[in-house]
Amino acid sequence: MALIVQKYGGTSVGTVERIKNVAQRVKRTREAGHEVVVVVSAMAGETNRLVKLAYEVDPDPISREYDALIASGEQVSTALVALALNKMGVPARSFLAHQIEMRTDATRSKARIESVGGPILRAAIERGEVPVVAGFQGVDAEGSITTLGRGGSDTTGVALAAALNADVCEIYTDVDGIYTTDPNIVRAARKIERVSYEEMLELASLGAKVLQTRSVEFGMKYGVRIHVRSSFDESEGSWVVPEDETMEQVVVRAVAYDKNDARISVLGVPDQPGVAAKVFAVLSEAEIVVDMIIQNSSQDGTKTDLTFTVPKADVLTARRLMEPVAAALGAATIKTDNQISKVSVVGVGMRSHSGVAAKMFGVLSQAGVNIQMIATSEIKISVVIDEAYTELAVRVLHQAFGLDT
Amino acid sequence: MALIVQKYGGTSVGTVERIKNVAQRVKRTREAGHEVVVVVSAMAGETNRLVKLAYEVDPDPISREYDALIASGEQVSTALVALALNKMGVPARSFLAHQIEMRTDATRSKARIESVGGPILRAAIERGEVPVVAGFQGVDAEGSITTLGRGGSDTTGVALAAALNADVCEIYTDVDGIYTTDPNIVRAARKIERVSYEEMLELASLGAKVLQTRSVEFGMKYGVRIHVRSSFDESEGSWVVPEDETMEQVVVRAVAYDKNDARISVLGVPDQPGVAAKVFAVLSEAEIVVDMIIQNSSQDGTKTDLTFTVPKADVLTARRLMEPVAAALGAATIKTDNQISKVSVVGVGMRSHSGVAAKMFGVLSQAGVNIQMIATSEIKISVVIDEAYTELAVRVLHQAFGLDT
Repeated sequence: MALIVQKYGGTSVGTVERIKNVAQRVKRTREAGHEVVVVVSAMAGETNRLVKLAYEVDPDPISREYDALIASGEQVSTALVALALNKMGVPARSFLAHQIEMRTDATRSKARIESVGGPILRAAIERGEVPVVAGFQGVDAEGSITTLGRGGSDTTGVALAAALNADVCEIYTDVDGIYTTDPNIVRAARKIERVSYEEMLELASLGAKVLQTRSVEFGMKYGVRIHVRSSFDESEGSWVVPEDETMEQVVVRAVAYDKNDARISVLGVPDQPGVAAKVFAVLSEAEIVVDMIIQNSSQDGTKTDLTFTVPKADVLTARRLMEPVAAALGAATIKTDNQISKVSVVGVGMRSHSGVAAKMFGVLSQAGVNIQMIATSEIKISVVIDEAYTELAVRVLHQAFGLDT
Repeated sequence: MALIVQKYGGTSVGTVERIKNVAQRVKRTREAGHEVVVVVSAMAGETNRLVKLAYEVDPDPISREYDALIASGEQVSTALVALALNKMGVPARSFLAHQIEMRTDATRSKARIESVGGPILRAAIERGEVPVVAGFQGVDAEGSITTLGRGGSDTTGVALAAALNADVCEIYTDVDGIYTTDPNIVRAARKIERVSYEEMLELASLGAKVLQTRSVEFGMKYGVRIHVRSSFDESEGSWVVPEDETMEQVVVRAVAYDKNDARISVLGVPDQPGVAAKVFAVLSEAEIVVDMIIQNSSQDGTKTDLTFTVPKADVLTARRLMEPVAAALGAATIKTDNQISKVSVVGVGMRSHSGVAAKMFGVLSQAGVNIQMIATSEIKISVVIDEAYTELAVRVLHQAFGLDT
């Protein structure tokens, strides 16, 4: 007998019919002898509807009320799933964040979980009930409702699995696992059986939208085994698990891409200490996330160029904030480019295999893809390229690193 | 400076535009120097949408989850009103039932308020904020969400007004007050300026849907002055207040009707003690509300007929439950009639004026309306008649008791 946390995303509970399917699956899991805790997102489309309402009232809504508003969708879906389970003869009870003391910090709209009220859920499980927990939401120390950001229900699921010492956190979604790349681009993309937390973290933050990054961090920190699978069939999905030796045998696990960033270049800034700090302090204050940063060493030691990427949605704000800074620094000009994408290869095998970067650059060069920026970590290499070449680059890299077969 | 509780119904917050109007009105009230506590219902249509979802999942939904589900509509409307107020520069904060300790008993779907967390709201008011409180919902001792029944937000408003010792509870709705009868039936119907709690209780339970009965009971118990008015204009509405001498000058305050009941007759039951108790025990167990009851004294002292009314929605269940009881009692037959209505005249003036019943029966007789059942209280007389004559009866009574002028 195992304790299984099953998290169902918005599409999995998007209609009454699908909610009944979820209940059926929970029931089957119980009949197989397991204990189940269910975590659900809002019904597909519901959170967007609520967000739209908020922006109709105030284009810059205050965060306390915004969070209270958009957390209401999970109250609906948890109650409906609990109703469906009871209807099938499975005792179930819905829980909102405040009812299980899902405590977070007070950072609205991307709050971080601080503690989870395990005892309340354990008591429900011991009574023979299936707790159906609202994902995505928490409460801060004041008792106000917070939310965990888009995809936050994943994190709720993994956090509960950690608190309850569950055997696995199953993430049910509308795809059947994690792929070596986007199957819409590369037909030969294959489902990955096992991926390490480190790899998944890179993939999650690189635009593979299957899991919220923070849920993977949580999984890694507490050793929660995560199983990403489809809610529409019974097939085995992909496991996100601790790294082991066999994983290093594969050099590149997956190829990811991200078209959501834009590039900003500040040309002709003085090549002296403190310049970058000034530039990025301004962006940080505005909570604009900077991803890649490149500063060339200048040829004559006086002027240099500073290039970085930010989310496309923030590029106008960033530019507006940069202008006075650039002027004060005597920078020549600011250039922005929305037509870029980031393509990355990821794999823990890179730690023990050299030459991956060289191979990647060679493959891209042969395909006629110009590299604008490069960033690397121990287990990934990312390049920024012209957005128009994204699919081409993904395809040639997927093949070159042996992922097609 | 007064402390005013303003309760806005579903139509008053039915769209983003109307929510902004609500916020404007709250702002104006503040600018006039008053302190305001806002209570809101779910946006019009939302509760129905949620009810429909529940019944799609389970035609007989378990009450804990049903209540959790349908209470979610108020989370949306409170947050949106709080957003709109903040946007207009009025500090505001939404509160759900558990956040202000709005404690009820555990009777689902028609829970009774036991206590209200006044201190939390008082603290918010003292900080200069407008609390925006979710109507309709409460929490029981276990921390589960309860709801107060249709129209329950009225009761939330009056209960808060009582707990905060507010000067008035304003009930904003889509009509501009309480009328001497339904203006759709009698064009000459007039808005009532002042009505006593007792009269309003009779009117509320007699099918005038303006205020939830329990809110009036609460108002009477705690002496809360209730002002029913339109959210679409500034006109003075109707006041529900303690009875005073001037009120007795009017014999009949209003004529009400109710088409929601059906009649059940059990014919030929033994005329002996304990029979009625047996019959109604069965209905009471099934939580079917019996309104009027008539038992004729039998002519020969052996058999009699028992007639009573129940909600139309319950008539089939009631009949099914009665059949074995009637058989056991040796009753001849059970008859039901859905085509009835109840027409009532109400007024505290009846206490000091005799002949109201005689006049009422005379007027109906002259109009050719046959009376099937009669029930009276100190301040009202109700008759059950053929449903087809409802409008006629209301019209002639409204005129005969001088309400047209």
